[in-house]
Amino acid sequence: MEKGRGKFNRNQRVIGITKVLTENPNKVITLNVFTEKFNAAKSTISEDIVIVREVLETLSMGRIETVAGASGGIKFINEKSAYDKAKFIEELCELLRDKSRVVPGNFLYITDIAYNPSLIQSAAIILSAAFKNMNVDYVVTIETKGIPLGYEVAKQLGVQLVTVRHDTKYTEGTTVSINYASGSSNRLQTMSLSTKSMRRNSRCIFIDDFMRGGGTAKGIRELLSEFDSELLGSGFLIDSVEIKEKLVDKYVSLVNFHGIGEDGIAIVSPSIHND
Amino acid sequence: MEKGRGKFNRNQRVIGITKVLTENPNKVITLNVFTEKFNAAKSTISEDIVIVREVLETLSMGRIETVAGASGGIKFINEKSAYDKAKFIEELCELLRDKSRVVPGNFLYITDIAYNPSLIQSAAIILSAAFKNMNVDYVVTIETKGIPLGYEVAKQLGVQLVTVRHDTKYTEGTTVSINYASGSSNRLQTMSLSTKSMRRNSRCIFIDDFMRGGGTAKGIRELLSEFDSELLGSGFLIDSVEIKEKLVDKYVSLVNFHGIGEDGIAIVSPSIHND
Repeated sequence: MEKGRGKFNRNQRVIGITKVLTENPNKVITLNVFTEKFNAAKSTISEDIVIVREVLETLSMGRIETVAGASGGIKFINEKSAYDKAKFIEELCELLRDKSRVVPGNFLYITDIAYNPSLIQSAAIILSAAFKNMNVDYVVTIETKGIPLGYEVAKQLGVQLVTVRHDTKYTEGTTVSINYASGSSNRLQTMSLSTKSMRRNSRCIFIDDFMRGGGTAKGIRELLSEFDSELLGSGFLIDSVEIKEKLVDKYVSLVNFHGIGEDGIAIVSPSIHND
Repeated sequence: MEKGRGKFNRNQRVIGITKVLTENPNKVITLNVFTEKFNAAKSTISEDIVIVREVLETLSMGRIETVAGASGGIKFINEKSAYDKAKFIEELCELLRDKSRVVPGNFLYITDIAYNPSLIQSAAIILSAAFKNMNVDYVVTIETKGIPLGYEVAKQLGVQLVTVRHDTKYTEGTTVSINYASGSSNRLQTMSLSTKSMRRNSRCIFIDDFMRGGGTAKGIRELLSEFDSELLGSGFLIDSVEIKEKLVDKYVSLVNFHGIGEDGIAIVSPSIHND
C-alpha cells in the first residue's frame, strides 16, 4: 500500500487524471484507480472526468470514452485538431524539402525524422486515428527505421508492437520465415517472426516509415497468414507516389513523395487520406 | 492562426497545461504557448503552473523546472515515486520468471517486453532519471530490440535518438563503420552510423535492452570517438550479472539476470542502482 494521503481538491484531481490518461492512450482505466489515488468518492471522480473530457474536446486534444461492463472504465483517445494535423504535415514536408537530405543515388535521408520522438509522436497520433475503430490486436512493423513509428502507433492504440526481422536470432526461439520480393528492387528478401510473438487469429495493422511498391506490406500479409492472422490495413509516414502500381491496398500516409526535382529538392505534398 | 477562443477557467487551463507537459518531457516550453492557447495573462498562467507543479510533486508524478533566460520557460521532468519504481521493477522480474521464456540454448525470450509500450515507457522514465543532469545531446542505441527503450529514453530526455546499424543502407548516405568484438560471443561484428546522424562534439548515452559483457557499449564508445563525441554512460533493461568482467563502466540497469535456475526458471532480481 502507498502511504496515506489527504484529500485533494478538484484542481488537483483533474491534473492527476489528465496525467494518467495522457500517458495511457486507449487503455481502459477503471474509476477505482482514481478513487484510490485521490481518496475520493466515485461520484466525485465522475464529475472530474466530465470536466477533463470537456476541456480536452474544446482544445481538440483528444476524447474520453466510457467503456461499459464489469471491466469497464474510461479510455483516452489522443487526437489532434484538423488545424494541428495540417500544420504538422506541412512542417514535415518543409523538413523533407531540405536539399541536404538527397544522398547519392537520389535517395532521401529521413533517418533523423524516423528517430525524432517529437515528430514521431505527432505522426503516430495522426496515423493511429485511421485504425482506432478496427479492434487492432497488434501493430506490426519491420526492422529498422519503422520501429519508432510502429511503437508510437501501438502505444496510441494501447496494444503490443510486433517487429518482423530480416535475420533469425537465437534469442527469438522458434521462428517462421518467408521469402518476399521487395517492391523497389525486386530483390528476394527474407522476413521472420518468432512463434511466441503473437496469438493466432489476430487482427493486425502494418506501420512503416516509407512505402515504395508495397512489396513489404504484401510480404507481411503472407507472413501473418502463417499465424492465421489478418492484415487490416497499413500506415506509412511517406508514400512514394512515383510508383503507381502498389502491391498493397487499404493504406494511409502523411506525405506523398513525388521524387527529386531538377533543383535537387524533394517534391513532397500532404497525402490525401483515405480515412 | 487558430480560430478565436473564449476564456478558460483555472480547472480547464491546468488540464490543458498538464496534457502539453506530459507529452513533451524535458522540452522547454515558453509561457507564451499557454497564454496564447488559453487567451490568458502571463501572471494567470504562472499561478496555474504553481498548482500543476505542486500536484505533480505531491503525487510523485514528476517535477516542473523553471528555465531562466531569453529562451526560458518551464520544462517537465517525468518521474515515478520510489514506491512505483520498486513495484514496476518487481512486476518486470515476475514477468521474466515465466518458465516459457526460456528458449533452446538457455536464452531468455524478452522480445514481447522490449516491444510493449506500457512497460517500455515505465522503464524509460526510471532509467532516464540517471541521465537527466548530464546535458545529453543524443541517446544512442543499436538495432534492433533496444530501439523502443532508446526511443522512450530519448523522449524523456527531450533529445534525438540515434540508431547504430549492423549493415549499411543506401538511404543512409556516407557512413562510418567499425569492427568490434561482441562481449558474449567474441564474434567480430560491424557497427555503422551515418555521418549525417549527429553533430560532432556531442554528449551521448547508450541504451540497450540486454547487457552481457559490455562489448557493444565499448564498440559504441569507439564509434562515437570517430564523431569526436563522448559516451557519458549507459542504461540497460537487464544486466546479465553472470558475466562479472564488464567492458563498460558507468551504467545503470533495472534487473539483474543471474542465469537459468535448475527448475528452468530465470533467476532475476532488482538491480542496485548506482545513481
